[in-house]
Formats: sequence, structure tokens, C-alpha cells
Amino acid sequence: MQSEQLGRRNLIVRAGLALGGLVTLGSLQACAEDDGSSDTRQPTPQPTVADFPYDQHIAAGYQLDPAVVQEAAYHAYYVGGCCHGSFSAMIAHLAATVGAPFDLLPPSFGKFGAGGIDGYGSICGSLLGAELVINMIVSDAAARKNMIWELMRWYENYAFPVYTPVAVDALESTSAGFAGMTAVAPGSHLCHASVSKWCSTNAVTAGSGDKKARCARLTADVAGKAVTLLNAYLAASPRAYGTIAVADPNAACDGCHTAANTVATPPFGPSVASDMTCVSCHDPATHP
Amino acid sequence: MQSEQLGRRNLIVRAGLALGGLVTLGSLQACAEDDGSSDTRQPTPQPTVADFPYDQHIAAGYQLDPAVVQEAAYHAYYVGGCCHGSFSAMIAHLAATVGAPFDLLPPSFGKFGAGGIDGYGSICGSLLGAELVINMIVSDAAARKNMIWELMRWYENYAFPVYTPVAVDALESTSAGFAGMTAVAPGSHLCHASVSKWCSTNAVTAGSGDKKARCARLTADVAGKAVTLLNAYLAASPRAYGTIAVADPNAACDGCHTAANTVATPPFGPSVASDMTCVSCHDPATHP
Repeated sequence: MQSEQLGRRNLIVRAGLALGGLVTLGSLQACAEDDGSSDTRQPTPQPTVADFPYDQHIAAGYQLDPAVVQEAAYHAYYVGGCCHGSFSAMIAHLAATVGAPFDLLPPSFGKFGAGGIDGYGSICGSLLGAELVINMIVSDAAARKNMIWELMRWYENYAFPVYTPVAVDALESTSAGFAGMTAVAPGSHLCHASVSKWCSTNAVTAGSGDKKARCARLTADVAGKAVTLLNAYLAASPRAYGTIAVADPNAACDGCHTAANTVATPPFGPSVASDMTCVSCHDPATHP
Repeated sequence: MQSEQLGRRNLIVRAGLALGGLVTLGSLQACAEDDGSSDTRQPTPQPTVADFPYDQHIAAGYQLDPAVVQEAAYHAYYVGGCCHGSFSAMIAHLAATVGAPFDLLPPSFGKFGAGGIDGYGSICGSLLGAELVINMIVSDAAARKNMIWELMRWYENYAFPVYTPVAVDALESTSAGFAGMTAVAPGSHLCHASVSKWCSTNAVTAGSGDKKARCARLTADVAGKAVTLLNAYLAASPRAYGTIAVADPNAACDGCHTAANTVATPPFGPSVASDMTCVSCHDPATHP
């Protein structure tokens, strides 16, 4: 009986192997283990990509390693841009340390986000890449919103870049003055504003190697911050993220521009629903 | 021999079914078909989520149905917001008509994008949801960029909303004047600007049922436009998307604010790399 069962198990495993690796380890185990043998353990189903969000697949006590993610994000910038930098670094680390479903995802999914989404100048790609991963992990909608808002506000106020790579990337090409250039808080989470402000301050162009070196380090900074926020969420019991540490920058604006009143209700201005810092683009003295 | 093979096939299929549905149809077929029977056809491997991008899994001649996607996007807005509206409608349609890997994805992935990413006021969620799907399908980076730029520019200039739902959603609640309200071109792809301009024009609040009805219809408009662009790409042979039909709105600005010059090189201004319409936020007369 035992040998017959072993024969059946081998048949089934060979059937899986014949697929040239397309069958995952999980489904191979699925076919092979339920053979009625004396091993009565239930097979452990592997999480699938559809088993979303993914914190249900992350063990209690798990923490990401920010140093690993930051160095990987810095180098990945030179492979596929800022969004690819943060996204691929976080996903690769989760795949290596958690496994499924992170190891079932396409690591290059984030390349489209470079330069504010394919160069359009919208949301900084390093933020978008990190937020795609936050969205995968944080199952509680309120915690996810708080974490994303904190990451965005932190970005607006943080003087980038700070990260120093362990090894300078082979594709990096900076001017002699790069090391002495001024770190600048973008004031906005938008790529074009963030890049233009830093370039203007340091009298370099948006197409320069210095700008790329700045954005590669910024990508590591953002990925590291996202890891810190995720680790705080994962360490809480029960998991939660309830506090936004950066003060609301729009308290004075929100007093008139509420989501509940209109310009037709004096002294209120046009109704606005936003948490982007207003005064980066709108002069508070002259309106708008 | 045939009955023995059928017995083995059944054993293997039962082994898969014992997993409670976690094994996909693809992996069940993988186990069941390679049993040495007289059917010598090779099993057809099912695409996985990692087999990215996905146009390699879409048959020649395939076209999405814009009417199906638009109505689904409109209703899904009331379930999970604008990004969920466009994302889930497009993914569900692709899952139903193409199959794997679209039917292996989490349909609720886009909920985080509502209101410019969890209410932050950044990129309109209906755009982000559509662009996540464009990124999944369009394998050529230049075609993907052209398509995303065209979608963004079209959004800035299109007077929303236009779509009329086949059936008004049960959760919709509008004022008596909604049908007569003015459609407005946002001028920006950012949620807060798009919403505020429409609300101000129509003297309604950003928290109103009228605003929600506008955004639900806008979500259908954006999803329908994305489908039109994807269908053009899929119909080309070889697949391509080479033309952006909307003129560059920043030609006058780009003359000075190039990505290759700085303010230190008169008469040039600060170096800017962006395709967002400049004059929506920056007064061309006063700078900035």
C-alpha cells in the first residue's frame, strides 16, 4: 500500500514537473499530499495574489529591514526609475522574507510610475511605488489612509536627499559639486515641483546626472520611510496605524474651504476636499 | 488501461478539489491532463500574474466593450470610489472575456485610489485605476507613455460629466437641479482641482450627492476613454500607440523651462520636466 501510494505521488509530481515550472510549489504540494498516506497533516495552502490584502499572510512579529530595502531601492532607480525603485525593492524583500503572495507578483510593475507616471510630472513615483505596496499590506482602510497621508506630508517637508548608498551605482554620474549640493524640502508630493525646486536651488538641470543621483537617494529615503511606517503597523497588536505625526498643513485654509460649504455661503470659499499642502501652489495672500 | 487512467485522473482531480478551491483551474488541468492517455495534446499553461505585461495573453483581434465597462465603472464608484470604479470595471471585463491572468487579480485593489489616493487630492483615482490596467496590458514602454499622456491631457480638457447611466444606481442621491448642472473641463488631472472647479461652477459642495453623481459619471467617462485607447493599441498590427491626439499644452512654456537648461543660462527659467498643463496652476503672465 505504501509503495503504491509513493508511486501515485510520483506520478502526480511528474505531471506537475512536466509543466516546465509553471505550476507553483504550492499547487505541486496540493496534488502530491492528499494521497491518503499515513501523513495526516493538512496541506498548507499557499496564498494567491487574489487573497488580498496581504497582511493576513504576514506572521506576527515580522518586520521589514529598512537598510536592505533602501540600498535596493537606490540601485533599482538606475534600472527602472523612482517608482520601480521603491516598488521592486519592497516587493523583492517581502518575497525573500515572507514568500507568497509577494513572490508571485511581477517585480517590474512599477516602471510606469517613473517621473510622476511615465514622465507626466504627477505624484512622485517613489511615493506611488511605496503606496502600491502599503495598499497590498494594510487591510484596515483607516490605517491605510493615515499611513499614506503621513507619508505624503512627510515627503512635502523632508529635505531630500539624505540616504548615502553603501556602494555607488555603476550608472551614477555626478558633477564634482554634487556632494555639497543643498538638500531641499519639496513642499509638494508632485514630481515636477519636487524636481524643479531642487534643481533650481542647486542650479542644475532636470536632465542632469546630479538630478538622477538626487532622485535615486530620494527613492531610498521614501522606501525607508514607508518601511518604518509599515513596521509600526505590523508591530501593533492588533495591527493599526492611528496617528499622523505630521501636523495638518491646511488648518487655516480648511476653515473656509470646507468640503461642506460653498462660496454661496459667505464667508466660505469654494468647497475643497484635499490634504495636499495648499500654500505650495496657492498664495494664501492673494487667493488663489 | 483506459479505466485505470480515468481512475488516476479522478484521484488527481479529487486531490485538487480537496484544497477547497485554492487550486486554480489551470493547475487542476495541469495535474489531470499529463496522464499518458491517448490524448497527446500538450496542456495549455495558464498565464500567471508574474507573466507581465499581459498583452501577450490577449488574442489577436480582441477588443474590450466600452459600454459594458462604462456602466460597471459607474456603479462600482458607489461601492469603492473612483479608482475602484475604473479599475474593477476594466479588470472584471478582462477576467470575463480574456481570463487569466486577469481573473487571478484582486478586483478591490483600486479602492486606495479614491479621492486622489485615499482622499489626498492627488491624481484623479479614475485615471490612476485606468492607468494601472494600461500598465498591465501595454508591453511597449513608448506606447504606454503615449497612451497615458493622451489620457491625462484628454482629461484636463474634457467637460465632465457626459456619461448617462443605463440604470441610476440605488445609492445615488442628487438634488433636483443636477440634470441641468454645467459640465466643466478640469484643466488639471488632480482630484482636488477637478472636483473644486466643478463644485464651484455649480455652487455645490465637495461632500454633496451631486458631486458624487458627477464623479460616478466621470469615472465611466474615463474608463470608456481608456478602453478606446487600449482598443486602438490592440487593433494595431504590430500593436502600437504612436500618436498623442491632444496637442502639447506647454509648448510656450517649454521654450524656456526645458529639462536641459537652468535659470543660470539666460533667458531660460528653472528647469522643468513635466507634461501637466502648466497654466492651470502657474499664471503665465506673472510667473510663477
